[in-house]
Amino acid sequence: MSSIKERADLIKKAAADMGKDTYKNNTSKAGIRRADFKKESPKVVSLEEAIRNCGMKDGMTISFHHHFRGGDKVVNMVVDKLAEMGFKNLSLAASSLQDVHEPLIEHIKNGVITSISTSGMRGKLADAISRGLMEKPVVFRSHGGRGSAIANGDLHIDVAFIGASSSDPLGNALGFSRSENAKSICGSLGYAIPDAQKADKVVVLTDDLVDYPNTPSAISEHQVDYVVVCDSVGDSSKISSGAIRDTKNPRDILLAKEAAKVVINSGYFNDGFSIQTGSGGASLAVVKYIRENMIQQGIKASFALGGITAHMVKLHEEGLIDRLIDVQSFDRAAAESLKKNPNHREVSAIGYASADDPSSATHFLDIVILSALEVDVNFNVNVLVGSDGIIRGAIGGHPDTAADSGISIVVCPLLRGRIPCVVDEVTTLITPGSTVDVVVTEYGIAVNPDRPEIAERLKAAGLNVVDIHALRDRANSVIGKPDPLPFGDKVVGIVMNRDGSVMDVIKNIKA
Amino acid sequence: MSSIKERADLIKKAAADMGKDTYKNNTSKAGIRRADFKKESPKVVSLEEAIRNCGMKDGMTISFHHHFRGGDKVVNMVVDKLAEMGFKNLSLAASSLQDVHEPLIEHIKNGVITSISTSGMRGKLADAISRGLMEKPVVFRSHGGRGSAIANGDLHIDVAFIGASSSDPLGNALGFSRSENAKSICGSLGYAIPDAQKADKVVVLTDDLVDYPNTPSAISEHQVDYVVVCDSVGDSSKISSGAIRDTKNPRDILLAKEAAKVVINSGYFNDGFSIQTGSGGASLAVVKYIRENMIQQGIKASFALGGITAHMVKLHEEGLIDRLIDVQSFDRAAAESLKKNPNHREVSAIGYASADDPSSATHFLDIVILSALEVDVNFNVNVLVGSDGIIRGAIGGHPDTAADSGISIVVCPLLRGRIPCVVDEVTTLITPGSTVDVVVTEYGIAVNPDRPEIAERLKAAGLNVVDIHALRDRANSVIGKPDPLPFGDKVVGIVMNRDGSVMDVIKNIKA
Repeated sequence: MSSIKERADLIKKAAADMGKDTYKNNTSKAGIRRADFKKESPKVVSLEEAIRNCGMKDGMTISFHHHFRGGDKVVNMVVDKLAEMGFKNLSLAASSLQDVHEPLIEHIKNGVITSISTSGMRGKLADAISRGLMEKPVVFRSHGGRGSAIANGDLHIDVAFIGASSSDPLGNALGFSRSENAKSICGSLGYAIPDAQKADKVVVLTDDLVDYPNTPSAISEHQVDYVVVCDSVGDSSKISSGAIRDTKNPRDILLAKEAAKVVINSGYFNDGFSIQTGSGGASLAVVKYIRENMIQQGIKASFALGGITAHMVKLHEEGLIDRLIDVQSFDRAAAESLKKNPNHREVSAIGYASADDPSSATHFLDIVILSALEVDVNFNVNVLVGSDGIIRGAIGGHPDTAADSGISIVVCPLLRGRIPCVVDEVTTLITPGSTVDVVVTEYGIAVNPDRPEIAERLKAAGLNVVDIHALRDRANSVIGKPDPLPFGDKVVGIVMNRDGSVMDVIKNIKA
Repeated sequence: MSSIKERADLIKKAAADMGKDTYKNNTSKAGIRRADFKKESPKVVSLEEAIRNCGMKDGMTISFHHHFRGGDKVVNMVVDKLAEMGFKNLSLAASSLQDVHEPLIEHIKNGVITSISTSGMRGKLADAISRGLMEKPVVFRSHGGRGSAIANGDLHIDVAFIGASSSDPLGNALGFSRSENAKSICGSLGYAIPDAQKADKVVVLTDDLVDYPNTPSAISEHQVDYVVVCDSVGDSSKISSGAIRDTKNPRDILLAKEAAKVVINSGYFNDGFSIQTGSGGASLAVVKYIRENMIQQGIKASFALGGITAHMVKLHEEGLIDRLIDVQSFDRAAAESLKKNPNHREVSAIGYASADDPSSATHFLDIVILSALEVDVNFNVNVLVGSDGIIRGAIGGHPDTAADSGISIVVCPLLRGRIPCVVDEVTTLITPGSTVDVVVTEYGIAVNPDRPEIAERLKAAGLNVVDIHALRDRANSVIGKPDPLPFGDKVVGIVMNRDGSVMDVIKNIKA
């Protein structure tokens, strides 16, 4: 054995050669006792402490997810607290906003919130913004577009506030809880994952603080700075509110059945196919009507993507769909399935639908069924602004899935009451017609002229394939050509394409 | 509706204000048909193509994981190919090396590999290196230390080569396969996860190319550049080779039973405790002997960490251990459990044991049972270099778990044949005595004087607590004080502390 001195010299030389220090044995083990971190940790603080410790300043960007949809309690809770603490001039970067966020109107009036980006909005907030409430236009992005913008730095988030149905004291967080004290459930936290990955600071709010380790988790402790325990992060009974209620409307059921026929005869209904159904009663219901054919023809799906529904869970549990890839659980059954089923998998907004990521799931999607507020004769689709010029929807994954899928099928009634849905030109361009393949109405099915092979297949199956202009004419003949909308001169909204370019603007409505 | 011109101008202005382009509708949907990516992708190439496409150059650093242990086929396959392609002067950054990597001797002699970092090595390669085969000393790091070094850039990896038992064409990869064509299984890929996250280029090698999406996965497609299909990535029958065979040695069983008594009376054996057992027959077997007491006392463990074994899987399946957090599956039963059990979770080397990450799992570990080649009177431990001066082991997570756990228990016979295991000074310092709490031998249990409360508890339970000097004296009285080892003047190995400082050096052995 070498002498102590010689050994020390060799260690010193090796360290110097590597540009490293030599080891100093100056920590006593007895000082390290962190086992209590299972139940508590310095990360667990009050909301006010979390805000202070994050170094919040006027002008910063805060972010939120919308997995609780109409039941969300986090946006209002946090913005109320920020207002109370005196912050001003904040940018709110939500994955989407709902009716429940009406209190933001006051915060906008008071200068707390001066800028918003979101996938969509509804209700009184949307109404006020459509009429010119805000100085700066709201920036609308698709879910994939938001993921890309966060990933590439276009949308920089200073502090992300993430509502979670469970978290341990270190921040391993989920949209459900495995404990007996669970108060809420929203399922996937997919839209919050990019925020957790990229925000400078991340605050998890939870109504069920559980023992470490709360894993597997959607949000990893390694990304979380603070954990705030609160009474409720959301009302789970409202996760299927908004545009994702299960339909009982006979016209929606008719449209869903027609769309199912299109799917079955499209050329994409083959063993191992993949499918997504967007929000809207008719599109959600399609899965129900292709089930029989899957069984009869012995066809199984490799995966269902996107907003996952009870219908999809049922087919999955029957073995008809191999995997569920879930960016957002559209109902309680889906949220519960995510909790218990290892082949029901959570995916981030980026992994779901980013155009920049060649392996995002939409790139492997065969069939998507989508809804629309308006379709025009060039197959352009609007899902954001009503025919009255008022914002009343959300972009969601509409343009992402339309662009990347093998076949995109838009399901849309010809008329909604006195409102025509097939028009000359969409009020607002959300999904370019070059990415929309089929439009299903109760008066016939229009196929994009770029996809003649699909038209041939549908005709061969005896489906009523019509020219889209004929649908427009039929709507006009019933309703008459509508008057131009009374738009003002102020730009209240900007629609980004998923590639980060500006696609359209929304002007204020005067009526 | 605004005139087309006016609308275009507003879009242009909005884009200019944001510093963005306006949307150009120049892609036709009909051109995008990527559904075949389920079964094939441009990422799937030959090993030679992957190496070329990664831009491999002389002098680069390549990395490998050791989850197949003695059955690994990837290191030799890739280095053979690199040698054939003429590369020289490469740095090999392995998570560990085994007997099977003997062919590296020729590649070192031929200048293909000129630098190595690893957790350990065995067999003829270790023997040759101990005798001075390499110009540059081998850098030894603990598993947590390697994770930290990769995370903070100390260990930069140019190209990671990751053997996987399944991968889809995009690189979603796992240490097991869900398909019927599975050829291999190694379980967790925990040590490869930091490599996948941080390497400039990542190549997955697999012997089972499965349909997309192969999720949940250990390695995400988003991190993978190329996928290489090969005949075999490893022989699964050898994953419990090396230091992790299940013991039938009567002395190991005696030691395991003694260690179990220490655990039970340590003050850390409470409901919700957590435990890890390091490699080595006696330490692995301890779990078997605490089971009865868990049942009798109604005590359950919150998690078992680390190298996961069949014993732990059994207790988990019986409901005695809530979760398994697995950085490395120590046997086939553990690997199979990871595949099927959602509460058996994979963890990266960083999440497992990084000192820099306050929430790495070791920080929440109550009890760890470890083995040793030598312990000295200051409780320092050596697990790397034999008492003959030849490298014959691996650092593993030894210093990581000893430092972070509530109680670290080293299990070690007093003598191995004619070799004393309790000595005056360890041949090589791997785990500082300040982090070692208890040493269990067949002739008595020594407790670190820094932990008098533990000594009191063990004495109160009637265990044979002795002074560690008495153990050293007993070994010396049987064997006599050993002669100094015939070390030369060349430094063949450098031992890094987990904090990135240099802790010890290993000199060449002349005999």
